[in-house]
Amino acid sequence: MSFDKMEELIQTRKEAYLEQLFVLLRQKSISTQNLGIYECAELLKGMMEELGINTRLIETKGHPVVYGEMINHENAFTLLLYGHYDVQPPEPLEDWVSPPFEPTIREGRIFARGAGDNKGQLMAQLLGIKTYIDAFGDLPVNVKFVFEGEEENGSVNLPAFVEENKELLKADVVFTADGSSHNSGSPLILLGVRGMVAIELNAKGSDWDNHSGNTGNILPNPVWKLIDLLQTMRDRDGKVLIKGFYDHIRKPSEQEKELLRSLPYDAENIGEKIGYPSLTMDGETYYRKLTMEPTFNICGMESGYAGEGIKTIIPSTATLKMDIRLVVDQDPIDIFNKVYQHVEEHAPEVEVKFLGSMHPSRTSADLDIVKVVTEAVHQAYQKEPLIQPSLGGSLPDYVWTKILGAPSIIVPYANFDQRNHSPNENIELDYFFNGIKSICHVIHSLGEFSKNS
Amino acid sequence: MSFDKMEELIQTRKEAYLEQLFVLLRQKSISTQNLGIYECAELLKGMMEELGINTRLIETKGHPVVYGEMINHENAFTLLLYGHYDVQPPEPLEDWVSPPFEPTIREGRIFARGAGDNKGQLMAQLLGIKTYIDAFGDLPVNVKFVFEGEEENGSVNLPAFVEENKELLKADVVFTADGSSHNSGSPLILLGVRGMVAIELNAKGSDWDNHSGNTGNILPNPVWKLIDLLQTMRDRDGKVLIKGFYDHIRKPSEQEKELLRSLPYDAENIGEKIGYPSLTMDGETYYRKLTMEPTFNICGMESGYAGEGIKTIIPSTATLKMDIRLVVDQDPIDIFNKVYQHVEEHAPEVEVKFLGSMHPSRTSADLDIVKVVTEAVHQAYQKEPLIQPSLGGSLPDYVWTKILGAPSIIVPYANFDQRNHSPNENIELDYFFNGIKSICHVIHSLGEFSKNS
Repeated sequence: MSFDKMEELIQTRKEAYLEQLFVLLRQKSISTQNLGIYECAELLKGMMEELGINTRLIETKGHPVVYGEMINHENAFTLLLYGHYDVQPPEPLEDWVSPPFEPTIREGRIFARGAGDNKGQLMAQLLGIKTYIDAFGDLPVNVKFVFEGEEENGSVNLPAFVEENKELLKADVVFTADGSSHNSGSPLILLGVRGMVAIELNAKGSDWDNHSGNTGNILPNPVWKLIDLLQTMRDRDGKVLIKGFYDHIRKPSEQEKELLRSLPYDAENIGEKIGYPSLTMDGETYYRKLTMEPTFNICGMESGYAGEGIKTIIPSTATLKMDIRLVVDQDPIDIFNKVYQHVEEHAPEVEVKFLGSMHPSRTSADLDIVKVVTEAVHQAYQKEPLIQPSLGGSLPDYVWTKILGAPSIIVPYANFDQRNHSPNENIELDYFFNGIKSICHVIHSLGEFSKNS
Repeated sequence: MSFDKMEELIQTRKEAYLEQLFVLLRQKSISTQNLGIYECAELLKGMMEELGINTRLIETKGHPVVYGEMINHENAFTLLLYGHYDVQPPEPLEDWVSPPFEPTIREGRIFARGAGDNKGQLMAQLLGIKTYIDAFGDLPVNVKFVFEGEEENGSVNLPAFVEENKELLKADVVFTADGSSHNSGSPLILLGVRGMVAIELNAKGSDWDNHSGNTGNILPNPVWKLIDLLQTMRDRDGKVLIKGFYDHIRKPSEQEKELLRSLPYDAENIGEKIGYPSLTMDGETYYRKLTMEPTFNICGMESGYAGEGIKTIIPSTATLKMDIRLVVDQDPIDIFNKVYQHVEEHAPEVEVKFLGSMHPSRTSADLDIVKVVTEAVHQAYQKEPLIQPSLGGSLPDYVWTKILGAPSIIVPYANFDQRNHSPNENIELDYFFNGIKSICHVIHSLGEFSKNS
């Protein structure tokens, strides 16, 4: 009963574990097209039951959550594992080397839609549980499983699901295996995400486009209306001028600053990846701006005619889309209200539309449980993990930190170049098996920690 | 030999004159599609020769000019008549009550593509010449005819044509029958147009669109670049801040101001026509802003994704199109250079593209020859003409005032609701015959004036 046994089991069961994963990968489950969702949920439920997990489907307003439990110890810690069984559409099909729903091994990788995002990582969690039990005889903690079917659709029903099932889902820590490892190959620990509020601004001039000769200087131009408004919202240095926009922002702790400083950074390499060779900022600034500061981004704008040549009109409408990334403890609804209020004051005729939002999340790197998980990952990989206090992007991580009220830790099991959402999505075999080891180590360490708390 | 004779001739020849017009209307001549252009030019040449006009086609880099002359008097005035034989495409065909190239009379109007714009008005000029000769025995002035075949294509080759044929085209006054009469039904005299310069601004961020979560605060946003630039170009009251933009603007004379004050104005009616019921400015302001002041209009803008929902990206490019209307004596090239210089100073990374231009034009209302024409039109219509010192829109009128160096007068013969460029284009029969009378009166008065000068 030991980690040696665990290693041995993984070695001898490789083929069987891969076959388990392949069964799941062969089942389509495209959430945006509602293709194979129920079939996949039922399949997953069956596989979990075979592993001895008490499993059921819980309906939501959208696709069902596959919920499972292994509750053995009244006084032990409870670990909640989150993942998703839905996948992105596979198009464009012609760019796949092997068919997206026929998993194929090439060059040490499993190619299939969902290999990295998220079926491969989800299956590593499940097979890790099985391996641990077979190696150690029993789980030292309680484990709950939440696998949703709408992550690729924005997890629209997850907040309500967590809200309605708070008691059922109660846990000491939430652990997610999703996303990509760090470029450098080091294991990565993510302790939060930026939030977001998406807003549309619409300005109107006349009821239809008019000839700019016959109405130039007579009709108001909706583009100028938006430009006049936007310059009241942000100065030329990029500072947001909306009253209270920066209220509630949690300053990074000394430890978080230290973590940001320790992250590997290669400006040239990043610049190449994002098509911006002129990237010159230093690493500390880069990670601070990316993870600890809100954005005020315009992601779309349209008015009149902007094609070849010129159309001499005064446009009747102008539309602007913004996605504003938020950091803890900014509240998306509060920020939306402040933008709304600002527009009311400066350009009341401009329409403000709410397009969607997500709360930011952050789990303190100071928590003992974070240190325990970090150390477990360290042992699993025999390599010190990088700890990033926040992702630049947005995930529904706040359902755990804010609604459920539990610390949340994200450890991506997939390789950096997993090509999720793209053709030839893949997971490296080593990364898949390392994932299995990771969850074993995490469970073991949490068990020890649980005993001693 | 008198105006009574002229009236009698028009009355008895109505059917014959209409048949002449119909022959021209039946011949397609769509310049943008190069359909029937040469056929129409040859047809027109033949009709002019039958009227005794010495006619030939003069090639340009585009479609030929039909040029004609009746030079009888060494010392008399020379009148140049300008018009165009090309038409707009007739689409959408299903909206025409009768086919666009089969002229049909209904409700006192001739319906056909080109009925108002410009074959009906051009033919009224020619038939007016014939009528005058038959009523009075001889023309008291020399007449030159320039009918181009590219007006609906922006008169792209007209400036070069006039430049290269200055000696041939030499004239004391240029007279154009084009456009629509005033809403009120009064005859209208136009003494100039606004010019225009069309400009495109392009800003760039990274080489491709990037995920706004992974690059928010890291990549520059091209829309913000344009907004930051635009606010250095114009203040919130609409005043243009580009150095020297307002240089060279000719102040309206006392007489021009008086003319603007005398123009009929009905804010409610105009507001309805342009889809802007909130139009409240007074008439003097309206006409001053529309004809005596430059614009700084944005006619198109596009960046990222502005469709349904949201696409969370940092766009890689942003495009803005401007058409800046100009008044005498602003020079479009000078204004373009000033915009270019301004961008060089404030945002050198933004690309400035020249998309096209047209000079403004103005003929002084103080000239005796303008008074003579005005009085002649008054007599023809038995109604005092409205004199508008400038059109809000742009026409290549500067080829006469600036290149040829002659005063230029525009008198629209077509009814206000001629629907030019649209389905069911038409000219009222009365307006067509009044056009014939107008040119007779203008020729007669110019003859008298010529004798006395």
